[in-house]
Amino acid sequence: MAERFLVTYHVQAGAAAIAARARAIAVEQSVEMPLEAIEAPEVLRDIVGQVADITDLGGGVFAVRIALATSTIGGDAAQLLNMLFGNTSLHDDVVLADVEVPPELAASFGGPRHGIAGLRRRVAADGRALTCSALKPQGLSADRLGALAARFAAGGVDFIKDDHGLADQAYSPFADRVRTCVAALRGQATRYVPSLSGSLDTMRAQLVLAREEGIDTVLIAPVLAGFSTMQAMVAAFPDIAFLAHPSFAGASRVAPDLLIGKLFRLIGADAVIFPTHGGRFGYTPETCRRLAEAAREKLLDLRPALPVPAGGMALARVPEILDFYGQDTMLLIGGSLLAARERLTAETAAFTSRVAAHRYR
Amino acid sequence: MAERFLVTYHVQAGAAAIAARARAIAVEQSVEMPLEAIEAPEVLRDIVGQVADITDLGGGVFAVRIALATSTIGGDAAQLLNMLFGNTSLHDDVVLADVEVPPELAASFGGPRHGIAGLRRRVAADGRALTCSALKPQGLSADRLGALAARFAAGGVDFIKDDHGLADQAYSPFADRVRTCVAALRGQATRYVPSLSGSLDTMRAQLVLAREEGIDTVLIAPVLAGFSTMQAMVAAFPDIAFLAHPSFAGASRVAPDLLIGKLFRLIGADAVIFPTHGGRFGYTPETCRRLAEAAREKLLDLRPALPVPAGGMALARVPEILDFYGQDTMLLIGGSLLAARERLTAETAAFTSRVAAHRYR
Repeated sequence: MAERFLVTYHVQAGAAAIAARARAIAVEQSVEMPLEAIEAPEVLRDIVGQVADITDLGGGVFAVRIALATSTIGGDAAQLLNMLFGNTSLHDDVVLADVEVPPELAASFGGPRHGIAGLRRRVAADGRALTCSALKPQGLSADRLGALAARFAAGGVDFIKDDHGLADQAYSPFADRVRTCVAALRGQATRYVPSLSGSLDTMRAQLVLAREEGIDTVLIAPVLAGFSTMQAMVAAFPDIAFLAHPSFAGASRVAPDLLIGKLFRLIGADAVIFPTHGGRFGYTPETCRRLAEAAREKLLDLRPALPVPAGGMALARVPEILDFYGQDTMLLIGGSLLAARERLTAETAAFTSRVAAHRYR
Repeated sequence: MAERFLVTYHVQAGAAAIAARARAIAVEQSVEMPLEAIEAPEVLRDIVGQVADITDLGGGVFAVRIALATSTIGGDAAQLLNMLFGNTSLHDDVVLADVEVPPELAASFGGPRHGIAGLRRRVAADGRALTCSALKPQGLSADRLGALAARFAAGGVDFIKDDHGLADQAYSPFADRVRTCVAALRGQATRYVPSLSGSLDTMRAQLVLAREEGIDTVLIAPVLAGFSTMQAMVAAFPDIAFLAHPSFAGASRVAPDLLIGKLFRLIGADAVIFPTHGGRFGYTPETCRRLAEAAREKLLDLRPALPVPAGGMALARVPEILDFYGQDTMLLIGGSLLAARERLTAETAAFTSRVAAHRYR
C-alpha cells in the first residue's frame, strides 16, 4: 500500500457536476493526463489521486477530499505546494482548504525547531504574552533605524522586527542595519529580528553575518522566498528561530489558516505573523481563531508555533486581542506606536506593561 | 528626483471611497505605516508611494496607478514582488494588474538570455512554430520515461519537457531521469527539458549535472521556486534557456498577462508556459492574447520570450491555435498525444507535420 495523505478543496460547482470535477482535480494534482493514456498499473494504483469523499457545504460549494500519494513529494517543500495546488491554483473555482499531515511529512519537514518555548526563552518571558514592534519606514538610514530600535527597547518590547519591506536597499544595507541595531540593543533583553531577503545564497550570507553579531531570531517571507528556500535555511541554521511573514500569500485562494498557520509551521516557522481581524485586513475573527489554532494545536510531534497577530492594531485593543488569542501569543504593534513620535518609548512601555499586567478572562 | 515606476491595481470600491483606498494602497506598498508618524522628509518625498491617477473602469472597479520608488527594490526579484503586491495580496478587493518596467529594472533583471531566437537556434527551426510535449505520468521509472522520450522524438517534436510534477522522487530521481532521457535522444535534434526542483543549492546541483549531460534548456516554476531563486539560476547559468511553468501562480489575484507574460520574462524566462483558452483552464482568449503579447512585445531592450500555450490542447485545434498565436509560439501537447498509446509516435508526427505545414491566415 502506498502511503497517502488527505487534501481538502472547496469547490464551487453544481450538484450534477461535482463528482466529475472532483475526479478532474484528483487527476490534475497527481498525473495531469488522461487516465486511459496511462499504461503502468502501479501508477494507476499508487500515484493517481483518489477522491476520498465529497461533502455538500451548501451555497453551491462542496468540500472535496482527495488522497494524494506521499511519494510524490520527495521531501521537498516547494514540491509539497506543487502537489497540493500547483495547477489547480490556476482554477478560479477552487480553494485549497486543508491538508492532513501524515507522520512521514511531519518527519521530513520537521516543523518549528524552537517554537513557542524557544521564543519565550530568548526573552525570559513566562506567564504572559510576548510583544513585538516593527522598524520602519523603509528609506531611513541604518543609523536612524538603530536609534528607533533603542527607543522601542527602552519601552521594554520583547522583539523588534524589520518591516518586511526592508531588504538590502542602498539606503539601509542589511549588514549596516544589523550592526547598528545590535549595537543599539547591546545589554538589553530585547531581540532584534532582521528580515532576510534574496536568494538562498544571499540569505545564508546575511544570516552568517547576523549570527556573528549575536542574532538568534530572523524574519522570512516563505511565499516570496520559496518554500524550499525556507526549508533549506531552517535546516542549515538549527540554532536560529524563524518568524514567518505572510507577504504575497494571496490568501484568498489558499485558506489562511492552512497556509500561514499549518504549512508555515510544518516547514519550520517558529512564529507566524498574520493580519488579525479588525485591522487593515479583511480576515474574520473565525479565520484568525482557526489560524492561531493551526499554529499551536497538537500536530503529531511538531512543536507549536507562536501566533503573531498584526496588521494595524492599536494599543486600546490589547486587552480584547489578548483575551481572544490567549497567552501563547505575540502581539505585534508597529505603526500605532510609531505614530506617538517623540512619545514612542512611553507608548511602547504602555504597550508592554499592559500585556504583562493583563488578566485573562 | 527619486526614480519611480508605475504599478496598476484594479480595485473594487465605491466612488466615494476609491480615493482613500488608493492612498491606503500607496502607503501599504511602500512604508506601511501612518504618514503622520514619519519624521524624515526624504522618506515622505522619495519613498512613500504616490497615487498617479484613478480611472473608473465601470462595474464598481477602478484602475489605480501608483508610483513606487525604484530604490525600494534593491535589485532583488522577490523584493520586486514584495513591493508590488506583498501585503496587498492579502486584500480580497485588489488585483495587481500591470507594471511599467523602467530601464533601471530591466537592466537589473535582464530578461530572457536567449529568448525566441535562442530557442529556435537550439532546434534549427525557422519559419514555423515550435513544438513541445511532456513526459508523464509521474510514478514511471526513469527507464520508462526515457522510452517515452524516444517515441516522442521519433515523431519529430522539438522539445520534450518533464511534467512539472516530476521533481526528485524515489521512483524517478532527477539524475537517473536526465541520463536516461539524454541517452534516449542522442543524435537527434529534439531537446529534453528537465524540471528543476528544490532549493537554489539543489537546483544548481541538478543543472550542473544536466549540463554535463549536454542539456541546454530547463524547466522552472518561478512562483514555487521563489523569484530570487530563478533570478540567481538565470544569472549563474547564462548558457541555459529557461522555460517558466505557472504552477502555484494563483493567477486570479495577479493578472496572468502580467505575472506569466511580463514578470516571468523580466526575470529571465526564455519561454513561458500558460493554460490556453478552450482547454482545462478558464483563461479567456483575450487574457491569452495579452499574455502572449506581453511575452513577445517590444519592452526596452529585453529579448522576447516565447509563449507556450498548453493545458489540454488536442491535435484538432492546432490550426486554430497557430492562427491565434502566430508563428513565434511553441505548442505544447502532452496528454492528448499520450492518449494515443501505441500510436504515440505517429500521433506526434501528425502534430509536428501539421505545425510545419500550417499556412497562417
